[in-house]
Amino acid sequence: MKIAIYPGSFDPITNGHLDILERAMKLFDKVIITIARNSTKVPMFTETERLEMIRKVVRSYKKVEVDCFDGLLVDYARRKNATAIVRGLRAISDFEYELQMALMNRKLSDGLVTVFLMPNEKYTYLNSSIVREIARLNGDVSRFVPVVVLKALKKKARSAKR
Amino acid sequence: MKIAIYPGSFDPITNGHLDILERAMKLFDKVIITIARNSTKVPMFTETERLEMIRKVVRSYKKVEVDCFDGLLVDYARRKNATAIVRGLRAISDFEYELQMALMNRKLSDGLVTVFLMPNEKYTYLNSSIVREIARLNGDVSRFVPVVVLKALKKKARSAKR
Amino acid sequence: MKIAIYPGSFDPITNGHLDILERAMKLFDKVIITIARNSTKVPMFTETERLEMIRKVVRSYKKVEVDCFDGLLVDYARRKNATAIVRGLRAISDFEYELQMALMNRKLSDGLVTVFLMPNEKYTYLNSSIVREIARLNGDVSRFVPVVVLKALKKKARSAKR
Amino acid sequence: MKIAIYPGSFDPITNGHLDILERAMKLFDKVIITIARNSTKVPMFTETERLEMIRKVVRSYKKVEVDCFDGLLVDYARRKNATAIVRGLRAISDFEYELQMALMNRKLSDGLVTVFLMPNEKYTYLNSSIVREIARLNGDVSRFVPVVVLKALKKKARSAKR
Amino acid sequence: MKIAIYPGSFDPITNGHLDILERAMKLFDKVIITIARNSTKVPMFTETERLEMIRKVVRSYKKVEVDCFDGLLVDYARRKNATAIVRGLRAISDFEYELQMALMNRKLSDGLVTVFLMPNEKYTYLNSSIVREIARLNGDVSRFVPVVVLKALKKKARSAKR
Amino acid sequence: MKIAIYPGSFDPITNGHLDILERAMKLFDKVIITIARNSTKVPMFTETERLEMIRKVVRSYKKVEVDCFDGLLVDYARRKNATAIVRGLRAISDFEYELQMALMNRKLSDGLVTVFLMPNEKYTYLNSSIVREIARLNGDVSRFVPVVVLKALKKKARSAKR
Repeated sequence: MKIAIYPGSFDPITNGHLDILERAMKLFDKVIITIARNSTKVPMFTETERLEMIRKVVRSYKKVEVDCFDGLLVDYARRKNATAIVRGLRAISDFEYELQMALMNRKLSDGLVTVFLMPNEKYTYLNSSIVREIARLNGDVSRFVPVVVLKALKKKARSAKR
Repeated sequence: MKIAIYPGSFDPITNGHLDILERAMKLFDKVIITIARNSTKVPMFTETERLEMIRKVVRSYKKVEVDCFDGLLVDYARRKNATAIVRGLRAISDFEYELQMALMNRKLSDGLVTVFLMPNEKYTYLNSSIVREIARLNGDVSRFVPVVVLKALKKKARSAKR
Repeated sequence: MKIAIYPGSFDPITNGHLDILERAMKLFDKVIITIARNSTKVPMFTETERLEMIRKVVRSYKKVEVDCFDGLLVDYARRKNATAIVRGLRAISDFEYELQMALMNRKLSDGLVTVFLMPNEKYTYLNSSIVREIARLNGDVSRFVPVVVLKALKKKARSAKR
Repeated sequence: MKIAIYPGSFDPITNGHLDILERAMKLFDKVIITIARNSTKVPMFTETERLEMIRKVVRSYKKVEVDCFDGLLVDYARRKNATAIVRGLRAISDFEYELQMALMNRKLSDGLVTVFLMPNEKYTYLNSSIVREIARLNGDVSRFVPVVVLKALKKKARSAKR
Repeated sequence: MKIAIYPGSFDPITNGHLDILERAMKLFDKVIITIARNSTKVPMFTETERLEMIRKVVRSYKKVEVDCFDGLLVDYARRKNATAIVRGLRAISDFEYELQMALMNRKLSDGLVTVFLMPNEKYTYLNSSIVREIARLNGDVSRFVPVVVLKALKKKARSAKR
Repeated sequence: MKIAIYPGSFDPITNGHLDILERAMKLFDKVIITIARNSTKVPMFTETERLEMIRKVVRSYKKVEVDCFDGLLVDYARRKNATAIVRGLRAISDFEYELQMALMNRKLSDGLVTVFLMPNEKYTYLNSSIVREIARLNGDVSRFVPVVVLKALKKKARSAKR
């Protein structure tokens, strides 16, 4: 069985992430979408909120497991018997960061293959940070995120104003 | 009448911004240079100081209006009946960010055209942040900013030392 | 009256070119789409064929003029009293070539403004050369070019096989 | 069974190609390395020579099939029941071309997933054209190609001199 | 005597920095590796710790001097009678930042030449920040830094846990 | 004595090349500007014409030697006892090609250091091919090339018309 890890912050999960996830599902027997806990950045959504949103969104996907992890990605992948790490490639700036990560992960764990997938071009310039920014300014992000996330963003916006 | 919006932080306005503004004036009947209030970054100059510097610098330009705005740029552009958003293109890193912004703005407001202009090559690698950095280290930025801004930077430097 | 020049090889014109043309029409009173005759490359379509295809495609556009030119673009623009040159920006590789051209044109004619416009993201990676390549391999390019061009490509393919 | 296509000119096959092939073998049940016949460029090695070199080099790989194809890659992939197209990602310039190809292939055949893999960093700037160039100048390419290819390059160099 | 300045944060010094330093030593009679004090970022290691690590690592290098500086790099270079500033070039993102710095430094001090050197490709994607990140997650960074730095990183990790 | 090689096609030599040459002269005791004979491209100027133009242009430079070479650059550099290869860095596209070359040269000759220098920003987008193109269209290239080259370009243009 070929297992792939799809790691990220998912703060929040967007339609671009889902697009990558669906492509990964065509390639692997199981895909573990997993939140990296170690980020030094303060997220908009707590780990629990992010996990819950992902779980709702991927509920109908048979091959997908949702998880969190601490420590090095390569150690986590080893524990999960993963063959591959899945990463979305959008802009050039992504490209360099992703290559750096892939190289470092390879140096730390030679057997692991990093697989880059390209989202639909309508998601080329979409990322979680721009979604948060537009939502913060009360813009309409309904085309960029699943309904569950849309609701959560609106709730955050309301509570921020109080 | 064709109206264009030239948005930014202008913290502070540089000769590179003025170069773009002058090009935009050749294309449009009115250009509104406008400070985006929503930035999460703490600016060097207050909004009032930045507005005042811009006003002094563009005083002799007939077609230019100076303003501030809150919320989404596309909503502001609609209120101002603008046809276009003007952006300067310098380095590749700009390019990707600007494309992302242009795409998002288009998705949020289809009628609006983002117009990219290229500054004189002597301003290719100039931006407000490097001006602030050099000024902070007591370097000479007289080639990079208008006289009004130069004075304001020196005043800031003096008060920072006290 | 603000006049813009939209120069290119248009071998053949694609939906991406039309997308840029339509954006330019929002900004200018007249847009001259014009074939550069000087290219050293051997085109797939003759100048007459390319002109004819463009004319059919833009027939309903009131503000658009179709033309050819020899010599330097800046000299042509001066003869046409143009304020601006319009260029589409797609990938990074475009970006550098376009900036080089814009800089050279500016050095040769300071008054002329090069205006970069971004096509719809569905045309981000579309260009005439890939259209010719897919058509040559009998692939379906109906999503990438106007009907007139589609027919011309099929005719070329048939005559190439005889 | 998951089948992947690894297309290219392979003129000649290099250690960088082999590195990508070996990674692909970890992900898929079968990998078809296949020479695209349609290139307009005149190759250094004939199709037969290139096929023979690849066959010798991959002889011990159980999961690998060697082939040639005409026409569109997506049509070939469909005939072969392939799930994925494998491409190596090296430099930024690759990146844009590859993304363009991936996008076009997706538009032509939605089910097919393009998988980008990153070679070992020692092959980051290696490609067939630089190998041919160095070999032509009698430089030592033994680190960049398999022994079979090295011999073929030397033979070509000798016959070119006569 | 040709003197070069190699400035940086060196938080901490990596094998990539040493690779660049050794190349610079082939070109110049003296190379001053120097810590820029002005950074607004909070470092992992104090200035004293960083200086000490560098000193230990370069002890056997006859041509190398270790130093710190305040203020503008160009003023420091002038005081040191330096002919050149040495910078490592790795990824594209580096490239743009470095060019901006080089241009600004040139505008501030015309005589000074910025020399870009390329590290061994095994250090292409290595930088201090990724070393700190991996060390923080208890990953093995022994391939990326000198022994002295490895020990210091482990000590930091232990004290962070208490 | 530190010797550097500055290789190229120099078809023709431009002010951008001279700018790089002058920077190299500050760093090295001798700089050999040398024409690579192996190019497969058909040049505008013969080797003799190119050599003659370079010789006239660098006549007053004491440290500069003018030459041609066949075969691998690294072999030539070894015969000349060179410490370094000098290359100009302009745009991103250069950057990747140059890095590839530098890496290959290093693999072929480990002792040789490739030194990248950045031209004045007014030459950022200047290269021989755009000079030839503008000259061919009777544009004014007097700002881009030395007087000797300007004359030679005009002579070529006249003879092309007969």
